[in-house]
Amino acid sequence: MPQQHRAQATREAILRAAAEEFDRLGYEGAPLSVILDRSGVTKGAFYFHFTSKQALASTIVQVQDDAWPVLARAWLGRGLDPLRTMVGMFDEAVVLLSRDVVLRAGVRLAADRELGYPGLASAHLRWEKVLADLLFAARDEGQLRPGVDPESAARAVTAAALGARLISTATSRCADYPERMREIWRFLLPGLTTEEWCAAAERMFAAPDVL
Amino acid sequence: MPQQHRAQATREAILRAAAEEFDRLGYEGAPLSVILDRSGVTKGAFYFHFTSKQALASTIVQVQDDAWPVLARAWLGRGLDPLRTMVGMFDEAVVLLSRDVVLRAGVRLAADRELGYPGLASAHLRWEKVLADLLFAARDEGQLRPGVDPESAARAVTAAALGARLISTATSRCADYPERMREIWRFLLPGLTTEEWCAAAERMFAAPDVL
Repeated sequence: MPQQHRAQATREAILRAAAEEFDRLGYEGAPLSVILDRSGVTKGAFYFHFTSKQALASTIVQVQDDAWPVLARAWLGRGLDPLRTMVGMFDEAVVLLSRDVVLRAGVRLAADRELGYPGLASAHLRWEKVLADLLFAARDEGQLRPGVDPESAARAVTAAALGARLISTATSRCADYPERMREIWRFLLPGLTTEEWCAAAERMFAAPDVL
Repeated sequence: MPQQHRAQATREAILRAAAEEFDRLGYEGAPLSVILDRSGVTKGAFYFHFTSKQALASTIVQVQDDAWPVLARAWLGRGLDPLRTMVGMFDEAVVLLSRDVVLRAGVRLAADRELGYPGLASAHLRWEKVLADLLFAARDEGQLRPGVDPESAARAVTAAALGARLISTATSRCADYPERMREIWRFLLPGLTTEEWCAAAERMFAAPDVL
């Protein structure tokens, strides 16, 4: 294999091994020596790619920081109604997280940082903002139950998704996250949306491949 | 002050200082030296009360392990209907957490341990079980919306409460946790309960002191 391919493969192996450890045990719980063992890479090769364990973690955080705007732009560009956009975008994020350990480790590392330091809960506040914007649009289109406050609803959805991710990660390595999120939508949507929209959503959920 | 009172006051000062640090930064983020500084207690006095930082953390975890069964027994003994019991018990737990930093630190330490180690999410699985039992009883009494699965609903409520606690802790030192949980009930209950029960709950929420 040409040298740059080999270098790329080594870098991928390090990222994946680190993600497996960070996802399971967090930053502090995953010593660099264990990550190197798992990846089968020498210390020398490691320092060719990353200056430190901290730099490695930052790269993994960056992967997920880059992923969400791409996802959001794709869903916002589809021209679906705002609630359908919200549910679809969220469900795709959940499926990606359940399948991709690098993405998942990035989210955990970012959350560990921000949840450990008050005032820095930026990723979750960003999600609340994205959802609130869609829910304001949904209210303008008459899709929300009367009296529903979009910001309040955005906080509730964000909280439920965060909790479900953590419990799912702890109990099933995140494999049942899509199912847990689906359950949450089923219970939250009747409180958020008009009966008509909710009935349409039930049909959507019965045929999940349309999402 | 008599010697045993002084000893008691020292112990309380250590527990409180440690809880403030653990709540904010987790176990790894809070060095014993910082806890001692904050509590104004010497190393010698500390080791009179606790054998190690680990033992101190375990005491704080124990405080919350002991608190929940007492709370559950009190609510279950009131003879209220199952859903009212569930909402009332949960809301009291949330208020206690928002006010008591020792309790909150205990929950964080327990969660950090269990969420870091797959398969050990015992506290959250216990809450899911308590809620599912109440929701099965609610179903038997005709309080649930047709088709609602009690275990699925228990998972959704537990996830939302966990996520709201973490975001509230990060953004407001948990001060707005009761308000965030109240929002979540407002959106979740229409998806869980019959319209009649939900309308009664709306009236309950309008007069929160009845809870």
